[in-house]
Amino acid sequence: MELIEDCIGRIAPPDGRAMEDARKRQDQLTKPRGSLGVLEELSVKLAGITGRLDPPLEEKVIFTMAGDHGVALEGVSAYPREVTPQMVLNFLNGGAGINVLARHVGAEVEVVDMGVDFEFEPGLGVIDKKVARGTRNMTEGPAMTREQAARAVEAGIEVVEERLGRGLELAGTGDMGIGNTTPSAAIAAAMTGAGVEEVTGRGTGIDDAAFRRKVAVIEKALEVNRPDPSDPLDVLAKVGGFEIGGIAGAILGCAANRIPVVIDGFISGAAALIATGLAPQAKDYIIPAHCSVEAGHRLVLEHMGLRPLLDLDMRLGEGTGAALGMGIVEAAVKVLNEMATFEEAGVTDRE
Amino acid sequence: MELIEDCIGRIAPPDGRAMEDARKRQDQLTKPRGSLGVLEELSVKLAGITGRLDPPLEEKVIFTMAGDHGVALEGVSAYPREVTPQMVLNFLNGGAGINVLARHVGAEVEVVDMGVDFEFEPGLGVIDKKVARGTRNMTEGPAMTREQAARAVEAGIEVVEERLGRGLELAGTGDMGIGNTTPSAAIAAAMTGAGVEEVTGRGTGIDDAAFRRKVAVIEKALEVNRPDPSDPLDVLAKVGGFEIGGIAGAILGCAANRIPVVIDGFISGAAALIATGLAPQAKDYIIPAHCSVEAGHRLVLEHMGLRPLLDLDMRLGEGTGAALGMGIVEAAVKVLNEMATFEEAGVTDRE
Repeated sequence: MELIEDCIGRIAPPDGRAMEDARKRQDQLTKPRGSLGVLEELSVKLAGITGRLDPPLEEKVIFTMAGDHGVALEGVSAYPREVTPQMVLNFLNGGAGINVLARHVGAEVEVVDMGVDFEFEPGLGVIDKKVARGTRNMTEGPAMTREQAARAVEAGIEVVEERLGRGLELAGTGDMGIGNTTPSAAIAAAMTGAGVEEVTGRGTGIDDAAFRRKVAVIEKALEVNRPDPSDPLDVLAKVGGFEIGGIAGAILGCAANRIPVVIDGFISGAAALIATGLAPQAKDYIIPAHCSVEAGHRLVLEHMGLRPLLDLDMRLGEGTGAALGMGIVEAAVKVLNEMATFEEAGVTDRE
Repeated sequence: MELIEDCIGRIAPPDGRAMEDARKRQDQLTKPRGSLGVLEELSVKLAGITGRLDPPLEEKVIFTMAGDHGVALEGVSAYPREVTPQMVLNFLNGGAGINVLARHVGAEVEVVDMGVDFEFEPGLGVIDKKVARGTRNMTEGPAMTREQAARAVEAGIEVVEERLGRGLELAGTGDMGIGNTTPSAAIAAAMTGAGVEEVTGRGTGIDDAAFRRKVAVIEKALEVNRPDPSDPLDVLAKVGGFEIGGIAGAILGCAANRIPVVIDGFISGAAALIATGLAPQAKDYIIPAHCSVEAGHRLVLEHMGLRPLLDLDMRLGEGTGAALGMGIVEAAVKVLNEMATFEEAGVTDRE
């Protein structure tokens, strides 16, 4: 817990002076003021996070965190549990969606085993932060102990801070874990107060019967565990997942180190609820990449006052949305730095 | 007119076989079916356009077409008319928004003088397709003659076909022309039947009084000219602009040559109404990059049954949205080609 408290204590407010300078420069560039919309806002946000108008964004890293879920035994997913480690191996071989989209934007993928029910051979390149081989079934009691929840968040902080020395200028988050939209929906319901049906979606693509079962499973988990929304670690422990805790930690680690963090879809959104529950000031460091198809994602983002950059009907996870979001973030910073001003270009400003 | 008719005659339906193959391959890739949403649909569309699953997209070109507008004299813009040529020079010097965003996605910008009220020195790199030095004031009669309208569309076709030999695999459209949201709104009203207030926006940022004037100007232009929506060239001639005609021609030229064309915002949308009015089958070759802030743009896209990729509150024009859209298109094609299949990766498919 000490690492978490220390990390939270280091999260400073954004740099208001740099934001002001960024706004002033945007208003001098050869375009109608505000006409690049979200790109302009993003460039100001990045200035606030990094303290500079021209933050280097070469070193882009997507942290894809994997974990298994006891609740997957309740038939809440369209895929069998063995797919979690299989997909981890696919990430390491470069064949998954996240690999393709990360390459597209020039980002590296760091794959973190937060709690997969499988022992990966050493030397494969998985970062080993395994808390346990999967959570327990949350319909029968807490998914993990409070100590395990804290350990998961700490591991996320560590992953970010261990990367800092090797270069980290723009971070992204992603997830892999068969069944993990179920704990994410449970977290969303617990933290926002929304009804379970409002925040439960079809995940990888379940049918109506499985959907009704999923809603019932989440309702039961909340009833059995009664997570306390004023205590985010309690929520994480009772109805969360190891990779969700890891992503929450990564968000805190980025915020403490003034690294902009582009978060992916619904699972990263649930993790952000935990992170901003622990440290509301972390919000200023979060850039939500996209709005997932998953029901409840928009509500989760609205609850945090965050507006997603993209809305492309995606629901794959892994960090795929975050990768595309990184491309937009980079474009925003380039606009601020590479466009000519009215004066430089000899263009007449508005009357 | 012969060039236009010939071009339209060469627009073939998309390649259904390639689309089917693309769909089949998407369903074998290591992700839940459909979970990459719009990226999957885009990869199928690109297959239909190009006839192949792995169309090369290295040679990306954004055609930014510039023209002046007689109606600008009516006080419908926040910027003076001299800004059109000034911005063209800014494009040539690489300092405008479109230059920055085109570089970001690896695209070249071709700047076309369709009808700027200025004589550019030779050797600057502007493609000279000037129809006239600006349109006439459409509140007093047609903006241009029918011959000029046809010439503008032909010039757009020529620009695309002249580029083909030097490499063109993915095209984008953009515009520059002080006052050009006014003819675009007039075209939108004429072609869709919507009310003028519904399709009129704030352009570069006019105040309430100027907005009311703009609506009145468009209503007057429509009343004076009575454009015939069943005759798109009549609409272009009476209430259009030279750069709008050029963009319409570029869209037709791309469609005839099976080049995917990513269209920018409201002005390109108005041009697409003209292009698809002339050749409804051109629609299958159009990828709408984004939904502009400009009122009426969404309605224009819906009228054509097109869904924009991005919604980033942008309203700059120049092709800036098209550039960002190109990045998404490229990502979509990479997903289809670079992801591993379930079989290749040894991942268990859904039960």
